[in-house]
Amino acid sequence: MPFILFDCDLPPFGAMVTIWTKWTKCHFRAFLVTIAAFLDALAGLLPAAAIVSDADTIAPWLTDWRGRWSGVGSVLLQPSTTDEVAAIVEAAEAHGVALVPQGGNSSMVGGATPPADGSAVLLSLRRMNRIRSIGSDHAVVEAGVILETLQRAAEAEGARFPLDLGARGSATVGGLASTNAGGTQVLRFGTMRAQVLGMEAVLSGGLVHDSLSGLKKDNRGFSLDHLLIGAEGTLGIVTALRLRLVPGRVQRAAAWIGLDDPHQALALLRRLDAAGDRIEAFELIPDASLQRVLRHIPQTRAPLAGSWPWHVLVEAVTGAGEDPPERLLEQLLSDAPIGDAVIAQSDAHTEALWRIRHSISEAERTDGPAAQHDISLPIDHVPVFLTEEARLIEQHFPGTEATGYGHLGDGNVHFHVRAPAGAPRDWADGAKGKAVSALVHDLVTEAGGSISAEHGIGQMKKDELARLASPARMQALRAIKRAMDPHGIFNPGKLV
Amino acid sequence: MPFILFDCDLPPFGAMVTIWTKWTKCHFRAFLVTIAAFLDALAGLLPAAAIVSDADTIAPWLTDWRGRWSGVGSVLLQPSTTDEVAAIVEAAEAHGVALVPQGGNSSMVGGATPPADGSAVLLSLRRMNRIRSIGSDHAVVEAGVILETLQRAAEAEGARFPLDLGARGSATVGGLASTNAGGTQVLRFGTMRAQVLGMEAVLSGGLVHDSLSGLKKDNRGFSLDHLLIGAEGTLGIVTALRLRLVPGRVQRAAAWIGLDDPHQALALLRRLDAAGDRIEAFELIPDASLQRVLRHIPQTRAPLAGSWPWHVLVEAVTGAGEDPPERLLEQLLSDAPIGDAVIAQSDAHTEALWRIRHSISEAERTDGPAAQHDISLPIDHVPVFLTEEARLIEQHFPGTEATGYGHLGDGNVHFHVRAPAGAPRDWADGAKGKAVSALVHDLVTEAGGSISAEHGIGQMKKDELARLASPARMQALRAIKRAMDPHGIFNPGKLV
Repeated sequence: MPFILFDCDLPPFGAMVTIWTKWTKCHFRAFLVTIAAFLDALAGLLPAAAIVSDADTIAPWLTDWRGRWSGVGSVLLQPSTTDEVAAIVEAAEAHGVALVPQGGNSSMVGGATPPADGSAVLLSLRRMNRIRSIGSDHAVVEAGVILETLQRAAEAEGARFPLDLGARGSATVGGLASTNAGGTQVLRFGTMRAQVLGMEAVLSGGLVHDSLSGLKKDNRGFSLDHLLIGAEGTLGIVTALRLRLVPGRVQRAAAWIGLDDPHQALALLRRLDAAGDRIEAFELIPDASLQRVLRHIPQTRAPLAGSWPWHVLVEAVTGAGEDPPERLLEQLLSDAPIGDAVIAQSDAHTEALWRIRHSISEAERTDGPAAQHDISLPIDHVPVFLTEEARLIEQHFPGTEATGYGHLGDGNVHFHVRAPAGAPRDWADGAKGKAVSALVHDLVTEAGGSISAEHGIGQMKKDELARLASPARMQALRAIKRAMDPHGIFNPGKLV
Repeated sequence: MPFILFDCDLPPFGAMVTIWTKWTKCHFRAFLVTIAAFLDALAGLLPAAAIVSDADTIAPWLTDWRGRWSGVGSVLLQPSTTDEVAAIVEAAEAHGVALVPQGGNSSMVGGATPPADGSAVLLSLRRMNRIRSIGSDHAVVEAGVILETLQRAAEAEGARFPLDLGARGSATVGGLASTNAGGTQVLRFGTMRAQVLGMEAVLSGGLVHDSLSGLKKDNRGFSLDHLLIGAEGTLGIVTALRLRLVPGRVQRAAAWIGLDDPHQALALLRRLDAAGDRIEAFELIPDASLQRVLRHIPQTRAPLAGSWPWHVLVEAVTGAGEDPPERLLEQLLSDAPIGDAVIAQSDAHTEALWRIRHSISEAERTDGPAAQHDISLPIDHVPVFLTEEARLIEQHFPGTEATGYGHLGDGNVHFHVRAPAGAPRDWADGAKGKAVSALVHDLVTEAGGSISAEHGIGQMKKDELARLASPARMQALRAIKRAMDPHGIFNPGKLV
């Protein structure tokens, strides 16, 4: 909008700070005018309810759920059809307005928060929440369907959707696909990538890619579905998905196991693996994390009588007509080389065990600041990382405490380095916390691991990705981003 | 090479044919000089044995195995390390010489044949044939390892590689990944995509992408592995793969089933599906195809006494210590609504049944020309396609005979439309054959199917892809091709 820039009347000689303030205001006005023209164009294409500019309504969606990232945005678009999304994309490209796609706003890495300069509008997919069709082995659902809604709909069909995570009440399937989400059932069923049988997405030009017919074999060039899975909304907008359901009802039971160290846990995992596809979760928990939960979370109690340095929460599943899973766990654990174990004898008991696991994050937060890392490693390397390399990190940063918990079976641990006593609340975001994270990421990269296992890159890890990814990866990510998003409108400032 | 073009001394006025001949020669000389400079650059980087320019050695690799596509090439490069491939890619980009990657040269769609203008060199991956490591659940193998070699190496580890197809003695794993190959075990284990746990590939700039550490979870941006799978060598050169092996030995048995129609076959498939993961192949065969095999292939005999319009070959697999698969098949088929069935009682019997299935292609060729299509459809639509729509095609082209056989469980049929009696041998490549193929592809596209299920696009289906793919798909394929291959050196003239 050049006329706006000329209209700014910048002083030719002024204090630097004045110039900067004026430039910022001017720039922001330019965005507002751009966005106004964009909205004018959309007015004829979208119903009025799809365009929200009420600041109070928008406010909650400008900050991520943990309050770590905030952005500026004066408009929230909430289309309810794929055609409306296509019209939005076309107009956004024509007017140079960026779109920040948003599902449940439950990103862990600032992946759904708009930029701070007000240059983008929020594109909420939450009103695209229809289940278009559902059967016993698949469902076609719109991007805004909430995970828990899908799980219940699957149950009503005598089936289940085999992906679960803590944010099930707010995360949408579009966001899950765009971030290739993981969770607690990856061990047996894989990440979101493995659940996607087909996709509908709006690409540059407002063109609609549609593979919802769900072909099992399709080799018409490289897969656009797989390209968009995990792209964090930077290449296009996922509007609907064909998702796998697993037919049949199941019974599940959990066991809590006390162990000496992560090496013993890995040996147990291998042993259970060999027994077939019955183990759906295998979560490793250090005693320090358990003790924090018992200290901070009401109505939790130690699962075992004795004291163990490490713990494993394992869940076994059997079909509706088969032996109960408790018996299977008994058989599998009876002569395993472990410390101690308790098998849940009721659903309530199973729930209580899972409650401990799901409360770790909250308990750790209560206990002061920590630099948190969502990392994955070749599985054989996880025990070494959680012991020797964790000690190395603690030595490097005296007073810190390095522990990891999480999905051992996927090589994925949530690795937290707790700040020394008396550190400020924002320690993790300061120089010291960043230095800790850099060391963690260096060690992970050296071991052939990933600095983002299941949370994605978003804003949080963009610099670290650029620092540590191979030249081949960075070259390809950047080239594809430019190719698929030539106008730079898809989720700016994220990933690459 | 402008000096070459000036050196050509084209006559200002000559017969058009003379000009054309000279222009072609001149052009071809220009390529030769370009290639000579490229080879000079490589001489210092590659061992002499890696550069082959003996015409007799090269000749067999210039034509595809069915003799449908031939190209021109004066050089074959056969690197034996990833570094050598990287050096080749870098030099090729610097000199503007295109590379045609080749594994076993077993493409069904002309995907590994060089262009006719002599502008490219062959890049054989066959000397990169080391098994870098192997265990009971995965192997890291170089691109040139032949499928059968991998299958045997897996067996020696007490495991198996769960992908099989007719060209197992020549197809390489690099080619299988680059074409996302299918085969007869997709029903349970998926296509090649599902077997790839990690990859090493050389991209533009000679940069090496390496995900061989085999992380189960890795969300560092969109997946390069999944982008390169099925890219037919147009985006980079796959040099090594980490592949899934399935631990454990199995016993297998086949059954041959006579049925009334494909609808009955689909009902049987659903019934067997419900019995769990024991059925690894489900091949549908029309009686016309069986009769052709019996007529043309020596030492084959009808599996059933009676006569049935349709047949199914099914294979069941059980673990080494479990009930024999013959018993499982007996149970599953005892009260199924089918015509008749025979369960193989020995490995030799199973082999004989499979021999019929694998001979269909050869028998059909003996019987005269046909337009062949490797299509996939939503599974529920396959019976309609094989009956009503096949009749419609026959009516449209009087004298033709339209039948399909293949992997019903994957919605993938090899759909052949046989020429009317007396048609010339090259009928399929002529106007009539192309019109037939266009109608087949139109019907497939209308039904939400794919014009390439497992063979890829290559040269053969490039025009049909451009004609029938959605604008979204074509825009994305082209943009990504340009982005990943800015110098246009990777497998020119294929796919997009």
